Amino acid sequence: MEKIAVLGGGSWATALVKILSENKSQVNWWMRNKNDVQHLINYRHNPRYLSGVSFDLNFVKPSSDIQSVVAAADWVILAVPAAFVQQALADLPEDALKGKVVVSAVKGMIPKDNILITDYVERHYQVPNSHQLVIAGPCHAEEVALEKQSYLTIGSHDMPTAERFCELLRNRYVKANPLDDLDGIEYCAVMKNIIALACGIARGLNYGDNFQAVMVSNAMFEIERFLDAIMPIHRDLSGSAYLGDLLVTAYSQFSRNRTFGNMIGRGYTVKSAQVEMNMVAEGYYAVQSIYELNKRLGVDMPITNAVYLILYERISPSVEFEILKDKFK
Amino acid sequence: MEKIAVLGGGSWATALVKILSENKSQVNWWMRNKNDVQHLINYRHNPRYLSGVSFDLNFVKPSSDIQSVVAAADWVILAVPAAFVQQALADLPEDALKGKVVVSAVKGMIPKDNILITDYVERHYQVPNSHQLVIAGPCHAEEVALEKQSYLTIGSHDMPTAERFCELLRNRYVKANPLDDLDGIEYCAVMKNIIALACGIARGLNYGDNFQAVMVSNAMFEIERFLDAIMPIHRDLSGSAYLGDLLVTAYSQFSRNRTFGNMIGRGYTVKSAQVEMNMVAEGYYAVQSIYELNKRLGVDMPITNAVYLILYERISPSVEFEILKDKFK
Repeated sequence: MEKIAVLGGGSWATALVKILSENKSQVNWWMRNKNDVQHLINYRHNPRYLSGVSFDLNFVKPSSDIQSVVAAADWVILAVPAAFVQQALADLPEDALKGKVVVSAVKGMIPKDNILITDYVERHYQVPNSHQLVIAGPCHAEEVALEKQSYLTIGSHDMPTAERFCELLRNRYVKANPLDDLDGIEYCAVMKNIIALACGIARGLNYGDNFQAVMVSNAMFEIERFLDAIMPIHRDLSGSAYLGDLLVTAYSQFSRNRTFGNMIGRGYTVKSAQVEMNMVAEGYYAVQSIYELNKRLGVDMPITNAVYLILYERISPSVEFEILKDKFK
Repeated sequence: MEKIAVLGGGSWATALVKILSENKSQVNWWMRNKNDVQHLINYRHNPRYLSGVSFDLNFVKPSSDIQSVVAAADWVILAVPAAFVQQALADLPEDALKGKVVVSAVKGMIPKDNILITDYVERHYQVPNSHQLVIAGPCHAEEVALEKQSYLTIGSHDMPTAERFCELLRNRYVKANPLDDLDGIEYCAVMKNIIALACGIARGLNYGDNFQAVMVSNAMFEIERFLDAIMPIHRDLSGSAYLGDLLVTAYSQFSRNRTFGNMIGRGYTVKSAQVEMNMVAEGYYAVQSIYELNKRLGVDMPITNAVYLILYERISPSVEFEILKDKFK
């Protein structure tokens, strides 16, 4: 029986625990909130996310003790928001992840450091990139809860390990495929949140479907230029892990990045939008990281630049989108 | 002053007349229905489509006499459904289009003959491909009526002529760009209707957003394989004329192909769906043409095949999509 630690209590973590435990892996599930852990033990569902999903406690062990959760596992899945990765892992000794396969289900980068989650884990926890995987969508956790047909791509430098992990995920409604592009998939997952945020701003400014389709087309070229600059290998960017992941986010009415962008487009300040939403969209941090990284790369990234200037330099969204729309074709 | 004939009375024709006449081209507008012509002359709007758009009759001359409309024009825009192109042109002598630039705004092929509109015009009306253009989206006519920012791509083998036509279209809310891929753009416009129909079937069968994103990703590869088989040139398929056009159709709640597919997925027969909708979706004919064409090409086209078998061979949608979902990744 495979022993897996899942770190995080959000909807994506909950969906992954459902998939893995139904396949009869042993899942040690860490979440910070002790009340939520107790609720899970008492009632067998997560009180906050996908609460319709019931767990078999023979296969799921909820706990708020991260050290014991990690110690007992061969695979460690990180599924907390990027901004909380450092904090979540802070209680672990530096060698706690050594020898384990670390799987990032995080769609973001370490804020301020502007590095990928896999790079952070490599630097601080002595887990080489070759022992790491990333999980990419397109996959709304809510649809996994409803057991709607979904597809996952597992990015890796080590294809046999990726294939082993795919085996743990595959079931009646989940297909999983390995793909040899750890960094490309991870960056693309970050950038798609920026594009979804931009789609939201456009909607808030009253741009329509024609414009959104053109923005997504132009975004694909922007992503391609960035990935080619940072790691130039051949990629089929129309694939599910890239285009598919972007589509499910950019066209989702439920995307938090899109909702946040929409409020910005309608004239909310960043602060008031965040207060109103009672959370921070991943794209808010992602755009700063990518913008900073790109200072040394110098890639032509009009969408990223526009979103950055709107969110961090208080440039008017309508002014930025007037400029942006003239760059599209 | 440029003299342009627009043939067709539907929403796309109406949007094009609006764009061209507002730019002060002389537009001779043919529609078959004499009452609609009279309504336009009396009230300056099309009674059936985009009826909020008002026309300046100094620049728009509605008529039901196709011969005089065409004779007076240097540019002839075809904007009727593909299934009615032959019938619409039947009253024209064979040399009526000679020396003119013919522009196809049709998103389909000649049914049964299974040839592109541009090929039909070349064969029957002595207009070489080099004197023809195609207009590609992504462009909902309804959004043009609302003057929302839109982008058009003009496909051509003759870039200076395409650029001249782009000049006639460009305005405050329309950007137009020439692209040297007449056939690729025309085929892609046909195939996107098949994909939109497939998206509708999936929705009718209760597949979700995760599946749709993966289907669109897989569709991009299907389109690429087909275009490479039929005319192998380098194409940036993420461009607005390809991916953008597909997105605006596949993700539109208003697409007739999607609506038709949805009914099929929910269990309507083809006949009853057509009766209920009181029209035939372009994708219904398109899938037969592409399927027939592909008999000699032998390209791997799982989505096209599935839609064909469902619509023409009465195979159960749920059975076909069970097979299809296993082919996707």
